[in-house]
Amino acid sequence: MPSLRLALAQVNYTVGDLAGNAAMVLERTKAAAAAGAHLIAFPEMTLTGYPPEDLVLRASFRRASQQALRTLAADLQAAGLGETAVLVGYLDDDGAARNALAFVHRGTVVARYFKHHLPNYGVFDERRYFTSGSTFVVVRHLGVDIALTICEDVWQDGGPFAVAGAAGVGLVVNINGSPYERDKDDSRLPLLQRRAAEAGAPVLYVNTVGAQDELVFDGDSMLVRPNGEVALRAPQYVEDVYYADIDLAAAPADPPLSVGAAMTVQRFATQAPSALPTARDAVTPIAAQVAPRTPDCAEVWGALVTGLRDYVRKNGFRSVTLGLSGGIDSAVVAAIAADAIGGENVHGVSLPSSYSSEHSKTDAADLAERLGASYRVVPIAPMVDAFVSALALSGLAEENVQARVRGTTLMAISNAEGHLVLATGNKSELAVGYSTIYGDAVGGFAPIKDVPKTLVWELARWRNEHASDTGRRPPIPENSIGKPPSAELRPGQLDTDSLPDYAILDAVLERYVDGDQGVAEIVAAGFDAELVVRVAALVDRAEWKRRQYPPGPKISFKSFGKDRRLPITNRWRDEQTGGQ
Amino acid sequence: MPSLRLALAQVNYTVGDLAGNAAMVLERTKAAAAAGAHLIAFPEMTLTGYPPEDLVLRASFRRASQQALRTLAADLQAAGLGETAVLVGYLDDDGAARNALAFVHRGTVVARYFKHHLPNYGVFDERRYFTSGSTFVVVRHLGVDIALTICEDVWQDGGPFAVAGAAGVGLVVNINGSPYERDKDDSRLPLLQRRAAEAGAPVLYVNTVGAQDELVFDGDSMLVRPNGEVALRAPQYVEDVYYADIDLAAAPADPPLSVGAAMTVQRFATQAPSALPTARDAVTPIAAQVAPRTPDCAEVWGALVTGLRDYVRKNGFRSVTLGLSGGIDSAVVAAIAADAIGGENVHGVSLPSSYSSEHSKTDAADLAERLGASYRVVPIAPMVDAFVSALALSGLAEENVQARVRGTTLMAISNAEGHLVLATGNKSELAVGYSTIYGDAVGGFAPIKDVPKTLVWELARWRNEHASDTGRRPPIPENSIGKPPSAELRPGQLDTDSLPDYAILDAVLERYVDGDQGVAEIVAAGFDAELVVRVAALVDRAEWKRRQYPPGPKISFKSFGKDRRLPITNRWRDEQTGGQ
Repeated sequence: MPSLRLALAQVNYTVGDLAGNAAMVLERTKAAAAAGAHLIAFPEMTLTGYPPEDLVLRASFRRASQQALRTLAADLQAAGLGETAVLVGYLDDDGAARNALAFVHRGTVVARYFKHHLPNYGVFDERRYFTSGSTFVVVRHLGVDIALTICEDVWQDGGPFAVAGAAGVGLVVNINGSPYERDKDDSRLPLLQRRAAEAGAPVLYVNTVGAQDELVFDGDSMLVRPNGEVALRAPQYVEDVYYADIDLAAAPADPPLSVGAAMTVQRFATQAPSALPTARDAVTPIAAQVAPRTPDCAEVWGALVTGLRDYVRKNGFRSVTLGLSGGIDSAVVAAIAADAIGGENVHGVSLPSSYSSEHSKTDAADLAERLGASYRVVPIAPMVDAFVSALALSGLAEENVQARVRGTTLMAISNAEGHLVLATGNKSELAVGYSTIYGDAVGGFAPIKDVPKTLVWELARWRNEHASDTGRRPPIPENSIGKPPSAELRPGQLDTDSLPDYAILDAVLERYVDGDQGVAEIVAAGFDAELVVRVAALVDRAEWKRRQYPPGPKISFKSFGKDRRLPITNRWRDEQTGGQ
Repeated sequence: MPSLRLALAQVNYTVGDLAGNAAMVLERTKAAAAAGAHLIAFPEMTLTGYPPEDLVLRASFRRASQQALRTLAADLQAAGLGETAVLVGYLDDDGAARNALAFVHRGTVVARYFKHHLPNYGVFDERRYFTSGSTFVVVRHLGVDIALTICEDVWQDGGPFAVAGAAGVGLVVNINGSPYERDKDDSRLPLLQRRAAEAGAPVLYVNTVGAQDELVFDGDSMLVRPNGEVALRAPQYVEDVYYADIDLAAAPADPPLSVGAAMTVQRFATQAPSALPTARDAVTPIAAQVAPRTPDCAEVWGALVTGLRDYVRKNGFRSVTLGLSGGIDSAVVAAIAADAIGGENVHGVSLPSSYSSEHSKTDAADLAERLGASYRVVPIAPMVDAFVSALALSGLAEENVQARVRGTTLMAISNAEGHLVLATGNKSELAVGYSTIYGDAVGGFAPIKDVPKTLVWELARWRNEHASDTGRRPPIPENSIGKPPSAELRPGQLDTDSLPDYAILDAVLERYVDGDQGVAEIVAAGFDAELVVRVAALVDRAEWKRRQYPPGPKISFKSFGKDRRLPITNRWRDEQTGGQ
């Protein structure tokens, strides 16, 4: 029974950076070869980054991806790494654009597999870009038949994993660009256990880590045996190469040539000696890591930190600036930023108006001090007064001018000092349109735009409780957690003047937004009819405001981002069905 | 040979307005029945509006669409309109969401057809929402076999039109939500001629008019005979019901039950008497209209006016405001707005800074006077000075503050007076990121965001030349057309300080943006390599700015809207391939 040392490259790549991504593959392969790995597998579309979106439509980009693969194969060989099998995702073009996986060995592309199942829902638009493959690909390497699959293939009954069982393969590799979503990791393992059983072979599931625009990739890569045992599980969000030694079924002498009418089978073989890995004496056995699951708050915090860090760094920024109001939202955003890029790279600005409370300034200063962030105060009264007197403003127009003067001030600081501006709105506010367009909605990135207000509080408490893990002070002032939320755009204003209690609001929003439930259904579940109708009406009317909000990390099934596409011009009012 | 009077309802509906759209169907059917029509056909998804986007994912919306169809059928019957066959598009759900066409007669839905070919490119995401139908549907009505098809079905070789030929039908109805694009109308007629020949029967092509967010629908509905003759062609952009009398092949006594293995055929029959329309004496023959084609500028202008008018009205606004700089862009936008909603509903604001030239004010005032628009001057120096002194700004940060003070001023006027703010940027500027985010990019709608600068000038000249058609003064001051473009954010600034000549820039952009050509290809076509590399780099880096721009009417193959989806975080630089 051949025994292979498998290297699982849970890496972070950048969309469009073909040369950089290829260099990273080379470097990780060097480490894996030094560690005695026979095979290293990289995530989906490693060379191009994922998702490359409309770059796929450019012939020059498709050619560059194919060229990058050829160059990589040659470079691996030239670097003396030819004996290590490298499985790497890229964009191919054989007359149609393909989401592809190459098996590279001894400087050549031994086999290529084209993804069968193209997701076209939620954040995925793969049928816009790619043509499905229909061939099942097996590579015989070091005496083992290895089947190649990509991402969504694993979610399909009767797909390549069923064929893998019929074909008698020894290992199925599944490479992924699978975005984070709360509790998604709970469904991954049972699914992989089912597929490993179906294939009758271990499944090596490799996912990427890091973030691309709104998408966060949490990793959670693993190796699952056909009996359901987890041989290796990588921690979430941590970029590294993980290793496992595993005994695999020897390739059959006479493999079935056909596995039914469903799929063509293509078989390839590397030029590696077929008996090599049966003698494993040369290498010290590796104790594969099985990372424990983390609690929900830690997982969400990790997603937000990863999302912010990669957006800042991959877009060439090194620092951020944001308005610190003393409230919970800006405090949590600042704490996420400090965890992501260091408190010294966070530039807090207090922007008090004549309606700002004294605690809004002291709490903001307290926060900055705890985070090691820079802090300054820019009173907005002179600018607001100039607008109010030039335009004779009052009421809502005056309230909004305050928010917009703050936005303009932060952008001016950004222009002058080069920081990325962070918007601090949460999902509950965005859902109901409780924000000022070009005001608090200003910014390049919105770290908590997919975090409901009740979860913002929960995260703040969790982060403070776990501050001692790092031997530091709780980052968020208790005042900011405890005070009633207010936009402070007029004297004595409170969020509850305009909105229901956040616990109830969030419960309704979870059903109406995340669950796509109708008003009638939510009322039937026991919520107050008038309140549900009011909330639905607010949500239905706020699409334009949400569209103007900066991108932020997706953590829920339905964020207000790429996974949600509503018309702006829209006379549908679900509340009209409330009585039906 | 039966002769039918066909009514082609080239109507304007609103997404989500199920009740309003159904009422419009009833009203138009009443008129058609009075005019003696045997059949009236409405566009794709008339009841829901098109495209309904993620509303389709809501079960309550799908149920409401089905209910709206049932109610409509009953209402038509109750109104005494049951004898007129009504073909209407809607959203169905038979366990899967369907883009559907119902054939309604005598108060019942006689047949329903589910769209076969679901476009999933450009602005279309139909595979995200719908499941394909695979059944070919024929309805026998008044002695004629009528085949039902929807939109994209007509673009497919070997699709339902081929089956229609084999099935020997007398008429093929094709209902559409086909968005406007420059020169698209030139390809529609030859395509329909080919399909009519393939089907061996006339094709009734019904398209909607009006606009939905970025999409403009130009109508251009027609009736094409199998010999290619155009029996009826509706003008672009004009909402109306158009009529034609046409002799159609009688339904065969023994129609083929099968038309090959490709498609199941379902046959239905109305309860109308089968011999009625052979005696046509009762009605006076109608001379069907064949609208002439319009020149390119007229067609584009019509799209921009339609796009603006419907965005304003369908979103509940009645008036617009915009900054008038005296330059060509704001002048053209104001002229479009005046044509769309009347000059009296256009509120121009001159926002001079200390760098503004005298002619910027006089040309703006001249424009407003020509348009009958209101006009006011709000000097921005007091607000700009407040920012500059509070933040000690200079250079780019100071330039941008001017643009942002203008944006905040227009939004304050909007808040106080209820006008929709128009952004005045053109496609050339957007392409290369020559705009200030939260400054000139502020607004609810951007009428010329898909119009290259050179076309802006061409449209201005064309509109002035055709002013005499309406007996009015040329709307755009010659000064605004003739002066060199400048952002006037610093003394003596000209666009050409930062950008190539617009004639060259637009030629490169057409290849790089609309054509998705690579840098190497454009250089090979004879453009200066350094310039192409520079332009490509500007375009590649400006995605974030473009995302922040308001929606505007799409007129080109690739606008900066729903039809173009690029990553923000993107290290791909096509110019790197320039030397390859």
